[in-house]
Order: sequence, then C-alpha cells, then structure tokens
Amino acid sequence: MSICYFNGKFRPTSETALPVTDLIIARGIGVFDSLRSYEHKPFALREHLDRLRTSAEGINIRLGGIMEEIKGAIIAGLRRDDCPVAECVIKPFITGGDVNDFGTFPNPRFFVIFEEGIPVSDAEYKNGVTLSPSNEHRPFPMVKSVNYLVGIMQSAEQSDVLECLYCPDGEITETLRASFFMCKDGKIITAPVGRVLNGITRKIILEIARENGFKIEERAPKLSELADADETFITSTWKEVMPVTRVGDIKIGSGKQGPVAAHLLKLFRENKHRWLRQE
Amino acid sequence: MSICYFNGKFRPTSETALPVTDLIIARGIGVFDSLRSYEHKPFALREHLDRLRTSAEGINIRLGGIMEEIKGAIIAGLRRDDCPVAECVIKPFITGGDVNDFGTFPNPRFFVIFEEGIPVSDAEYKNGVTLSPSNEHRPFPMVKSVNYLVGIMQSAEQSDVLECLYCPDGEITETLRASFFMCKDGKIITAPVGRVLNGITRKIILEIARENGFKIEERAPKLSELADADETFITSTWKEVMPVTRVGDIKIGSGKQGPVAAHLLKLFRENKHRWLRQE
Repeated sequence: MSICYFNGKFRPTSETALPVTDLIIARGIGVFDSLRSYEHKPFALREHLDRLRTSAEGINIRLGGIMEEIKGAIIAGLRRDDCPVAECVIKPFITGGDVNDFGTFPNPRFFVIFEEGIPVSDAEYKNGVTLSPSNEHRPFPMVKSVNYLVGIMQSAEQSDVLECLYCPDGEITETLRASFFMCKDGKIITAPVGRVLNGITRKIILEIARENGFKIEERAPKLSELADADETFITSTWKEVMPVTRVGDIKIGSGKQGPVAAHLLKLFRENKHRWLRQE
Repeated sequence: MSICYFNGKFRPTSETALPVTDLIIARGIGVFDSLRSYEHKPFALREHLDRLRTSAEGINIRLGGIMEEIKGAIIAGLRRDDCPVAECVIKPFITGGDVNDFGTFPNPRFFVIFEEGIPVSDAEYKNGVTLSPSNEHRPFPMVKSVNYLVGIMQSAEQSDVLECLYCPDGEITETLRASFFMCKDGKIITAPVGRVLNGITRKIILEIARENGFKIEERAPKLSELADADETFITSTWKEVMPVTRVGDIKIGSGKQGPVAAHLLKLFRENKHRWLRQE
C-alpha cells in the first residue's frame, strides 16, 4: 500500500486529496522529485532535496520552512511500519498553492508519496529499451516541474517504446524521465547540466566512471551519431543504468546490454552505499 | 462564494479536493475550458463544449459520457441559488485520472467550477493593457491544457504586464490566455486556428466583424509590424475586446483604445444575445 504525508499526517495515498483551487491542478504550477530507498534508507537524500529546492525556487515558489518539513517527512516515512517496501519510490511534490502573485507563489502546499516501484527485470537490463526520438525539449531543464504532457504525447500509443528521447535540432539532450549517455570513440558522451535536468543518478554515475578511468565528454551527442555509437544507455533513480538498444528505427550497437553499461551498473551497485545517508 | 460540481454533487469550491493520484497533479495531464454567463445564461455553450471535447481527445483522454454530464452540470449550476453571480466564470476541467495507458487515459475525472470573475474597469478598456513578448509558444495549440507554467514564467514579477505575448520566431501568435489582433493597412490581422487556440470570442468577433464590413486577414502578424500598427487588441471570454497599448517597450498607436477595438466591443455587446443559449 502506498502512503502519503500531507498536512502533517501520514495517510493511505488513495485517501489523500488536494484542493481543486491549487494551481498545480489548474495551471501546472508544481515541482517534484523522485528518490528511492535501499534497505529502508534514502538514497542521495541531500542531492534530491537540493534539486527540489532549486526546482521550486526556479518557478518562484516561496518555500519558507517547507524543505525541512519534507526532509523530516521522508525520514519519518521510511521508518513507519506501513511504509510499503524496503526499496520504495519517494516522491515529494511542492505545489503553487492557491495564489499567483504576478508569477510568484507565496502560499505553496507540499505532500510526499511513498510507493512501490515497478520492478525492473534482468531481461530488461540484458535486452535494453527502445526510445522514440522527438524534436521537443524539456521545458526549463533546471526545474523538475510537473509539465510532462508534451513529452508524454511524443510516444503516445507506442507500446514498444519506454518514452521519448528529446532531440531538439538533432542534438540529443535527455529522455522524458532519464539522463542519456552515448559511448563512442572510447568516451562516454552526455549533455551538460543546464541543457538537461541535473540528474542525480547521472551525477553519481559520472563520478564513479571518472574514478574508474572512463573518459567523459559533456556535450549533447547528435542524432546523426547514433548509428555509429558503440552503445547507449540511460540513468535514473529507479532504472539505475539501463541500456538503450533502439531509438526509433535505429538499432544501437549489438542490440543487447553493452560492456560499459554492464560495468557501470555493477560499479553503481557496489558503490551505492556511499550515498545511503540521512543528511 | 464559488461552487464546484464534482462526483455528482455541488459543494463550495474551497471544500472540493481531487485525489493526489490524479495525473493532472503529477504530470499535468488535464484540459479545461473557460466560459461565462450573462444574466444566468451560458454564453456560447456549444462552442465551448466542442472545444473542450477536442482538447480532451487531443491528448487521448477517453471521454465516455463525460461531455453530457458536464453540460448538465453547467446548466444545473447556473440555476442554483448559490451560483455566485449572474455573470460568472464557469470552468470545466477534465483530468487524466489515475491511469496512463501508454499515453492514453481511460479513467478521467471531471469537475466544474463556478466563480466570480475579476471585474474589468472602464479605465482598462480606455487605456488598454501591456503584454510582454516571448519567444515561447503555447504547447499543442488545439488543446487547452493546464500546462501554463512556461507561459506564466514569461512575465513573472512584471506587475505592469497582463501576460505574455507568444512570438515564436518573431511571428505573433496569441497571448497566454487570449487571441491577438493587429489593425494595419485597413485590415484586421490575426493568426489562424491551428497555429493558435480556437478562441471562441475570437471566432465570434471575426463573424461579427465580417458581417459589418471589416476586412480580415488570417496570418500571424510579425513582431516587426507592431511599431507601425494602427491598433492592437486581444479577445477573451472575460475581457471581451481589450485594447493592447504596449508590447514590451513598444507603444502601439495612440496608446489608448482605438476605434476598431471600441467598435467591435460595442458590436459584441449588441450581438452577444445570439450566443446565449442552453444547447
């Protein structure tokens, strides 16, 4: 069962409701983050809270003491007996509230959802996923806002596709919900933060990759480079390091998990305890 | 007091809440419309309901019998003793519901808010409003979705500005919440539907203007034409025909309500009874 912290209480998420007057409903004014736990402990808590604060401030939400309350709710929620599973997804949302004061939001609300993630199978890691290329881009890359409509529509009714790959002007930035990496000419290539969302798993993977001697190039790879790429993969909180073996009609590399993605997934799992802390 | 129809009942809007699991909250999956009443009668009801249906279908919301329920709720709401005022704003929303089935939404919810509009003063009609130009554009012009975050941010913290004017690639399309018109060389110029939202007041104004001998040109006027325009104005459900006397640093025409805007506002008010029907 999923639980939700809202207005000072934990309740079943299915029994938690937000006033229809909140601007997250009528105008899409809201930000969120998505982190996870391993063995009841939050992963990269500080990094996710920093990003959530940056997101909220980026759209002029006046936070007051909300960030401290959210941190307390996450730590308390993970200790509860009704916390759904030891490895769960935690989603704090900050909403615009009811007042739009010339594009600033002085009275925000917040809530935190704890839920089970959808299991990722070994077969998915071995065979990889398919993405659908799109000319669109994430609005405000430094803000993880709830405005996902345009992105979701880019791969609507394509049941063989995980999600869209944003490629504005032929330059690959990120996917709807993950950071994108291309391996080519002995380097791992990925778009720089600012051009793309500050992916937390992205940052950790780059740190681990550098420690282990991989060469990194931070630039947006071109769509035209895909066909010659050795391999591509995405990183995200829940999928960790997931191979991408097809983009639209283009098969990438061997069509299976490549050696870099396999190595980085192994390194990530061996090192993840370094980011399991409650501060 | 504002009232809201939700789950088969009318309640105070301040006491109406939507489950946090609804995708309108977490992912911006939702559409709405905004119509008004004059003397307790809905204005252009059929046109607004047609547009709402088009919006919902445009993002793969499976409507079932929702449109009939919304129509019934609007008519019933306007007859209630607790309907806020004779001339109120009516906002039907259709949400994505809890289920995203590969970019289709089989279990939508809906609610309808009845509220007082913010009065428009004669001084505003006489002096006009200021818009802030932006390179952005409305996402999916044929869908009146709730994804307003990017547009709202374009004029954030500018208290002298009504809202942004979308001018992608120097071509003026529409404002955040209204249709835009430029008068120049004896013609009224406005961007075509598809490039912009199907504005209901826009459509009615064009019909009345044609009946009264105005020449219409449907193309996106250029930002570079603004300085030489005789006058510009916007149309919307609540503002009817509102002069625009400044765009960014550019003063338009006389800086006051122009003769075309004044004439069309008068004609609109004389003719509006033609669209006051309950079907």
